[in-house]
Amino acid sequence: MSGAKGGARAVREDRLWQRHADMAKLGGTAKGGVNRQALSAEDAAARNLLASWAHARGFSVFTDAIGNLFVRREGADATAVPVMSGSHMDSQPTGGRFDGMYGVLAAFEALEAMEDAGVKTRRPVIAVAWTNEEGSRFQPGAMGSAVFAGRYALDDMLAAKDWEGIALRDALASTLAAAPAPMRPGKPGFAVAGYVEAHIEQGPRLENEHKTIGVVTGIQGSRRYIVQVDGEEAHAGTTPRAARKDAFAAATRMAAAMYAATADEGDTLRFTIGRVEVHPGSPNTVPGRAGFTIDLRHPSDEILEAQEKALHEIVAREAAPCAARIERVTNVAPTDFDPAVIDLVRARAKALKLPSMDMPSGAGHDAMHIATLCPAGMIFVPCERGISHNEIENATPGDLAAGTRVLVAVLEELANR
Amino acid sequence: MSGAKGGARAVREDRLWQRHADMAKLGGTAKGGVNRQALSAEDAAARNLLASWAHARGFSVFTDAIGNLFVRREGADATAVPVMSGSHMDSQPTGGRFDGMYGVLAAFEALEAMEDAGVKTRRPVIAVAWTNEEGSRFQPGAMGSAVFAGRYALDDMLAAKDWEGIALRDALASTLAAAPAPMRPGKPGFAVAGYVEAHIEQGPRLENEHKTIGVVTGIQGSRRYIVQVDGEEAHAGTTPRAARKDAFAAATRMAAAMYAATADEGDTLRFTIGRVEVHPGSPNTVPGRAGFTIDLRHPSDEILEAQEKALHEIVAREAAPCAARIERVTNVAPTDFDPAVIDLVRARAKALKLPSMDMPSGAGHDAMHIATLCPAGMIFVPCERGISHNEIENATPGDLAAGTRVLVAVLEELANR
Repeated sequence: MSGAKGGARAVREDRLWQRHADMAKLGGTAKGGVNRQALSAEDAAARNLLASWAHARGFSVFTDAIGNLFVRREGADATAVPVMSGSHMDSQPTGGRFDGMYGVLAAFEALEAMEDAGVKTRRPVIAVAWTNEEGSRFQPGAMGSAVFAGRYALDDMLAAKDWEGIALRDALASTLAAAPAPMRPGKPGFAVAGYVEAHIEQGPRLENEHKTIGVVTGIQGSRRYIVQVDGEEAHAGTTPRAARKDAFAAATRMAAAMYAATADEGDTLRFTIGRVEVHPGSPNTVPGRAGFTIDLRHPSDEILEAQEKALHEIVAREAAPCAARIERVTNVAPTDFDPAVIDLVRARAKALKLPSMDMPSGAGHDAMHIATLCPAGMIFVPCERGISHNEIENATPGDLAAGTRVLVAVLEELANR
Repeated sequence: MSGAKGGARAVREDRLWQRHADMAKLGGTAKGGVNRQALSAEDAAARNLLASWAHARGFSVFTDAIGNLFVRREGADATAVPVMSGSHMDSQPTGGRFDGMYGVLAAFEALEAMEDAGVKTRRPVIAVAWTNEEGSRFQPGAMGSAVFAGRYALDDMLAAKDWEGIALRDALASTLAAAPAPMRPGKPGFAVAGYVEAHIEQGPRLENEHKTIGVVTGIQGSRRYIVQVDGEEAHAGTTPRAARKDAFAAATRMAAAMYAATADEGDTLRFTIGRVEVHPGSPNTVPGRAGFTIDLRHPSDEILEAQEKALHEIVAREAAPCAARIERVTNVAPTDFDPAVIDLVRARAKALKLPSMDMPSGAGHDAMHIATLCPAGMIFVPCERGISHNEIENATPGDLAAGTRVLVAVLEELANR
């Protein structure tokens, strides 16, 4: 690899690609995607597979009380605070094979490449698979990293329940029974000297601008809302329009006004209505109740605040003759990554002669929590047409390897500081 | 009762009201409504209760191959073609205690009142409970009366499946095992000399105009459609608006345009979006698929035809960048009731000194099918605030009895012709 030195030279594209294929079989779907819910049997299988690869290389493996899984390669100074890289192995219900998994496998490839190249670092380097990033089985998402960073209380998270009423505590116990690993005693969390997470972009910008590496400057803020509209059930054939309190008609007015109000010129604001429920759901009954979720994201907290006001105004204005309310259910402030880590990612991409661009992350990632603990950053690689959270999610072996080379170079630098 | 003679004098308001209360216990909901799905255990219980009342009065009971339940009071001429009255005992999932059930209990009260008054008619008089009028468990609705009238094929209907995949054939067998009645051999349907159905109005006109009796002149035409929108699932945080194929955003544009296009000045057109489904239904995933039902009704078939064209245009215009289609799933032409029956209902209401008005029916009823077999008509009574297909549906004992008095008077006239 031109410009590559140290472990970056030893990154093996074929090995990394094969590992993605091996992992994609665990929870693989007919359409080529994956459904690997947090703390499921498929998750346990992925943990066992990662641990088996780690043991084969002589790396140590351990877990913590929220089920985060760590693979450690020793440094010259066993007492030095480690640097860390990773992401998550759980997926959306109709997810792809790269979202999260790439960050775990890139981190593991980094360890192997350093091993193959005989690179010695001062600090230990740890690859991590965080528990339950997607939040599709247990809410909230990015849970393992948040508990590690002390941002969510361990006991609250262990009490979380999935749709079937299974407590996370029990799902975790089953998973660790099926995929045993030495348990680090005490509450999750330890000192970290630096954290870098590799991830597919999950958006189209790198592909559109023909760049291989996204130098991630931060993560946009995200807020989630639920809108509930209460009308009145009535007979579809007999009730005049003037006498109706049609909850879905009101919801439609709100949604239409919200789509219009959030259509910013720069196309930076992200506004999504993802879940919609209409009751009683009978074709010949005027809906008495309608509800929908809003996912709103922007790098600026001020703009999110202003948009939130606009959403409230729309709900109030369009509700009549129904009653309606909007409730904010989550609010994650924007994250700015460490300037030194950002500079390092940009410089290493340049040294490896990989075309790069600075960009914020549209999605939330575990790095947003770990960034509160230590200098942190992220490396993005392109994914086909920007499609993610979809079974047809795709990326090229070359881009995945390129991102991993940047990752190795950055980790070596951080591990020797 | 001033002006009442024959069986109309013998209609007992208290008995009729108590019967509604007894039936409302079968599938009764916490909010005072009923959920009595066609051919369910609750339906079987209602059949047994009606049959037990019939046996107590010496009326004969029989069923047919689609499960319609008949209670027959003999006339002087056992070979004369009978007259008939009735409605249905199944309900919406969150339905009321009067929709359908009133027509069955009014017909049964008519038989009892004639019996109590010692009225002799030339023709037999039959009270009927038609199978599956609502169409909420098995599609299409008004099934039993349509099969009786030869408008739907028996075998097709027996093959219909509910949401759980249970065939109507099997649900019917279970129901008849739990509520046995002698089976009339052969295909459903026999000669009928006249049919009159009593029903709550399910709209607000009688209440608003302070009338007790609606002289129903016909039933408006109704058409049902399904709209399907195909977009592309994408990550809510990363996918710019310009790159989205958001199926719910497209569905919202369609719905908004349809609500606007169907807002006729006279408020005669009935347009309802009752069922809405959005996939995958994850708050942080751009919807890849959205679907909704349309229920469209008007007394004029020409206007329905023009509106259908407008709906097609809207779907085509608003779909991009998604793909969309609209499909018509049912088309029931408007029904005009028999002028002689209409005149008779109006005249008997007047003789009983009950304030009445002529009106079309907004809802479809079993009478629309039986009207193809014999002279037919309907009698409406008010329901509170016009609310129906709702657990809070309500009507007064006095109005229910008044409608039944008109019914008895009309049936006596028809049964002596």
